[in-house]
Amino acid sequence: MNAELKTQTLPMKTAAAEKKIHKDYFHAAVSVDCVIFGYEDRKLKVLVMPSDLEEFKNLFSLLGDLVGPHEDLQSASQRILKERTGLDGVYMEQVQAFGDTDRHPSGRVFTVAYYSLLNIKHDGLQLSNPLLKWMPVYEIKQLAFDHKLILDTSLAKLRHMSMETPVLFHLLPEKFSLRELQELYEAIQGQELDRRNFRKKISNKGWLVDLKEMEKDVSHRPGKLYRLQFAETFPQKH
Amino acid sequence: MNAELKTQTLPMKTAAAEKKIHKDYFHAAVSVDCVIFGYEDRKLKVLVMPSDLEEFKNLFSLLGDLVGPHEDLQSASQRILKERTGLDGVYMEQVQAFGDTDRHPSGRVFTVAYYSLLNIKHDGLQLSNPLLKWMPVYEIKQLAFDHKLILDTSLAKLRHMSMETPVLFHLLPEKFSLRELQELYEAIQGQELDRRNFRKKISNKGWLVDLKEMEKDVSHRPGKLYRLQFAETFPQKH
Repeated sequence: MNAELKTQTLPMKTAAAEKKIHKDYFHAAVSVDCVIFGYEDRKLKVLVMPSDLEEFKNLFSLLGDLVGPHEDLQSASQRILKERTGLDGVYMEQVQAFGDTDRHPSGRVFTVAYYSLLNIKHDGLQLSNPLLKWMPVYEIKQLAFDHKLILDTSLAKLRHMSMETPVLFHLLPEKFSLRELQELYEAIQGQELDRRNFRKKISNKGWLVDLKEMEKDVSHRPGKLYRLQFAETFPQKH
Repeated sequence: MNAELKTQTLPMKTAAAEKKIHKDYFHAAVSVDCVIFGYEDRKLKVLVMPSDLEEFKNLFSLLGDLVGPHEDLQSASQRILKERTGLDGVYMEQVQAFGDTDRHPSGRVFTVAYYSLLNIKHDGLQLSNPLLKWMPVYEIKQLAFDHKLILDTSLAKLRHMSMETPVLFHLLPEKFSLRELQELYEAIQGQELDRRNFRKKISNKGWLVDLKEMEKDVSHRPGKLYRLQFAETFPQKH
């Protein structure tokens, strides 16, 4: 069935005529806020910078910008990431839109949050500004605007997704041990995990390939090394 | 650690000053589109109405409206649902924002999609307009605007969520049989499911309470009746 119908009973108008009726609605701005997660020293971190608004003096904010009149949401989020980190084609996913009426002191600014995951040790990573800072997520109490809510919402989504898809593998080297993998999951969950349960759950996912290699030059008992199954079809990895 | 810092090296400005610099960005409108799913005759349906724009003559659209200058996203979505269906407090969840530059012929209109689930047989359901129509989701080939993309994205989210949380129980009566439950899941997935696998998966979720009652007045062999575990703490049901 095609979604067609006879609309003889419906008064029709053009989009241009509708815009005149609705002109009072065309006064909003839309921004994108990037929740850029990184992993370092067994901690999940997020990239923040000091707010330059008097209203949020002494507070950090997520990295965001207004969406240009001829820019779509995804292009804006990729642009912000590129401008701030020098990286292209990083894994990103939309979290959701936030639109409380009082969320921005400049006026009505809706924002759309995207989270991304990147390896802090990545060769190409070049922060645009010395004021940018990787802050441990679980130590953040307050941020500018509604960015603490945006961070918490993004973190909840990441925690959920980490058990659904191998998204966290963006934060690991190509070869890794189960110990490294568990440490990463613990950093995301913000709590220790039972070793046996964790290994059972992960091996049931079918995500891992045993490389028949052992870790080298480690201070603990060397563990087996794994790689991600289907890594070649996995979205770009940084 | 509090997210505070000394910002002596950062030039500060007020939000009012920033708005002047950014005034060219404050020309967008934001709408909410409601993807209202219902279930009837073993089919998943969605509530649509004919578009009243010349540009989309003879096409149906989802139910949406612009977000008022003093309205937040969630209030707007609840308002649209109430206006269109007469129902309050229906389960709703944000899907995501859509912002392609050419998605609306009136100009730059971002939209945020919400999906909701309601029982088409609900006593309180009173459609605002005889042009509103429950259309079977899997029969829709085309909609106005980018609404087919919004519908497909919402459906993908619903399908995913249906295995994660007991969200679909919003579409069932209080007491139901496993046969009814499976028919509902098949309507959502758009395909038949293996009876044994389905029952095993669902019973592993711990969502069901066996009521020790049998179906009555059915044309097939009566099945056991169940209710949702923790139904009392479950969001409002319609």
